[in-house]
Formats: sequence, C-alpha cells, structure tokens
Amino acid sequence: MLPYTGASSGSITSALTPAMSLPVLRVLGQLDNSYIIAEGPDGLYLIDQHAAHERILFEKIGQQRSQRDMEVQGLLEPVTFEVSPRQEAILKSRYQDLAEFGFSIEPFGDRTFLIRALPALIHDKDWAGMLRELLDSLSRGDKSDWAEGVTITMACHGAVRAGQSLSEPEMRELVRQLEQCATPHTCPHGRPTMIHLSSSQLKKEFGRT
Amino acid sequence: MLPYTGASSGSITSALTPAMSLPVLRVLGQLDNSYIIAEGPDGLYLIDQHAAHERILFEKIGQQRSQRDMEVQGLLEPVTFEVSPRQEAILKSRYQDLAEFGFSIEPFGDRTFLIRALPALIHDKDWAGMLRELLDSLSRGDKSDWAEGVTITMACHGAVRAGQSLSEPEMRELVRQLEQCATPHTCPHGRPTMIHLSSSQLKKEFGRT
Repeated sequence: MLPYTGASSGSITSALTPAMSLPVLRVLGQLDNSYIIAEGPDGLYLIDQHAAHERILFEKIGQQRSQRDMEVQGLLEPVTFEVSPRQEAILKSRYQDLAEFGFSIEPFGDRTFLIRALPALIHDKDWAGMLRELLDSLSRGDKSDWAEGVTITMACHGAVRAGQSLSEPEMRELVRQLEQCATPHTCPHGRPTMIHLSSSQLKKEFGRT
Repeated sequence: MLPYTGASSGSITSALTPAMSLPVLRVLGQLDNSYIIAEGPDGLYLIDQHAAHERILFEKIGQQRSQRDMEVQGLLEPVTFEVSPRQEAILKSRYQDLAEFGFSIEPFGDRTFLIRALPALIHDKDWAGMLRELLDSLSRGDKSDWAEGVTITMACHGAVRAGQSLSEPEMRELVRQLEQCATPHTCPHGRPTMIHLSSSQLKKEFGRT
C-alpha cells in the first residue's frame, strides 16, 4: 500500500488531535463491517478496524522483536517452500534476519527451503503468499529498513480486514489495545486510524451553537 | 429558537441528500445522550434526537389538526390559569383557535381562565410555561402563521431533550418514525436533524481510495 498523503484540507479529520494518546472509548457498534464507532469524553470516534489493528500489531511486533521474545508457532510437520531464482537469492541472504521475527527457515536444496516455525501472528494466514510478497518487495534497503518493511508487512497481513464482522468483545479488545499504543492515530503506512468528531464540532454542524 | 442559517460551506453536512426520504436505519447507540448513531445502506447517520423528534411531532400535530383528530388529555380537575393583562388580551382572542390543538380553555373571571383539557402531547410537560411562552411570542401574525407557531412550540416542548438518555427501543422507535416523515432532514426551525457520512466519504477520509 502506498504511503498516505493526507486528506484534503478542511476535511473532518482536521479536528484530529495529533500525536496524543487516546482517551478511554466506549464502543457503540460496527459500521460497514469496516469501522468501529465509539464514544469518547468529547464526541464521536470512527475507527478504521484494519488500520487500527495494523498499528497495534506493528507496535507489538517491534516490542517482541526488540525483547527477542517473538511469539512463534512451530509447525507439526516442516513445510517445503519453493522460490524463484531471484527470491532464492534474497531469502538466502535474509533467512537469518527473518529468524528474529519468528521464521525458522533452512535451505533445503534447489530453490527450496524448509520451514519449521512461523510467527504466531501469521501462522494461520496465507503466510506463503506474505513471504513471497516480502521477498519481492524487500530486495533493497539496509537491514533496519528491511526489518521495518518486514514488520509492516506482517502487521498488515496479520490485521483484521475491512469487511470482516467483529463481535462486541472483539471490538472492545481492539479499542483497548489501540488506547495503549504509543502512536495510536496512524497506521504504519501513515493512514489515519480514526476520525474524531468533537462535541463542539457536532453542535456546530447541527446548528446548536 | 432562531431559524437555522446553515452550516459553513465545505462542512461534513455537504454530503446530505436534500429533501429525500430516509433509508431504513439500524441504530448503533447514543452519543453524548444527545445524538442517535445509526447505520444506513450507505454509511453513517448522526441524528440530533431533539431536532428529529421535533420534526416527527410537528408533522403529527399538523396531520391530527387537519383531520380534527387531536389527541386530548382531559384533566381530572379543571385548573385555573392566571395571565398578565397583555396575555389576557391575546388568549381571549385565541382560545377558540387553541381548541383546534386540543386546549379546552374557558374564561373564568379577572385575568383567569379555566383549563379542562390539554393536547395529550404536552399534558405531562410544563404546559403552563409553554402556554405563557406562546401568548408572549405569538401576539402578531395572521391565523395561519399563528397556527404554525403553535405547532412548532408544541413540537419543541413535547420533544425529547438533548442530554436525555434513551433506551435502545426508544431510539429505534424515534428513528422509525423519522423514516416515515415527509421531510425528515430538517426540524421545524430549519436546523438539520441529521448528518450523513457516506461510505465513499469515509473511505476518502481514511485514505482508502
């Protein structure tokens, strides 16, 4: 996904409080199976469930990696993973870096690798597709850039999608985790995770002032 | 309340569909004890509960009056109602017009009237205060203007207030009645009853396009 370049000026996000922690929010419901609607001490919050979950996972992965405490899911049987010549070159130079994220990958002959464990976050997702996307997109960059790219891609693939119905407890848990993020207002791609409509803004819109 | 002069241009109400009937809305919850949050087939609706209820009552009173079918609440005991000399003059010339709205009022001596029945809509509200407000404000105007003024004042005093907590069934009933209004988008004073954030507008705000 391309970096977000910002909404048009004068848009409703202009009331967004920049780079501040979130107040405690009360979940009202889900809209379009994509947005969580919540009430705060000062008005309404519309939360993009995918962007918000990306932010949560991005911070969680970064923290686990820095503490060398990635949650890992061992596979019952090792799985072979075949790659293109170009992907092979990158994976050969990177599979030890990937171990820091919870990937247990070993060379296993001609353009084939053996995967024994995966980050717990993505083990039940299309991790093979994600790994191929990673290898194709992350061929350049130094190690720190590369690590950030891996973190973003894992967060994006691990996050709940737009269009996915969430239960009340799932929404409350997601909002609770977002409240605890260091920078809750944007996803790792830079898109907003939420729109805030303040009480005074609502009064103005409704001609109550 | 003064007539509403419209929100600033470029505001979030610009996406409001003018003068059209409402789609079926699903209530998500209440915000600030003042707004009902609902989901429609195309995005989010924020409904000002007081303005919406004013619109509903305004149309209901107009209909009942035109059909000479006002819901009336007889009082167990007639109540005396004392007025100022100025109010007396107006009430003397108007109490028969007020009968069309469900007020049963008779002259009862010096600056005193006897009230035997009230519009059902306001019988449990501060109807005496409302009646005094009516007499003070509606001294001018022809009969049709006057009747509209009475209708607006009754709708305003009968409507649920901002700041009043509503149950889920109450919110659903209010929204259902608003859906059936002829002109559901504005209150009788001309203020908007709702703000609509369309799905495409939300996508744009969240950088999803």
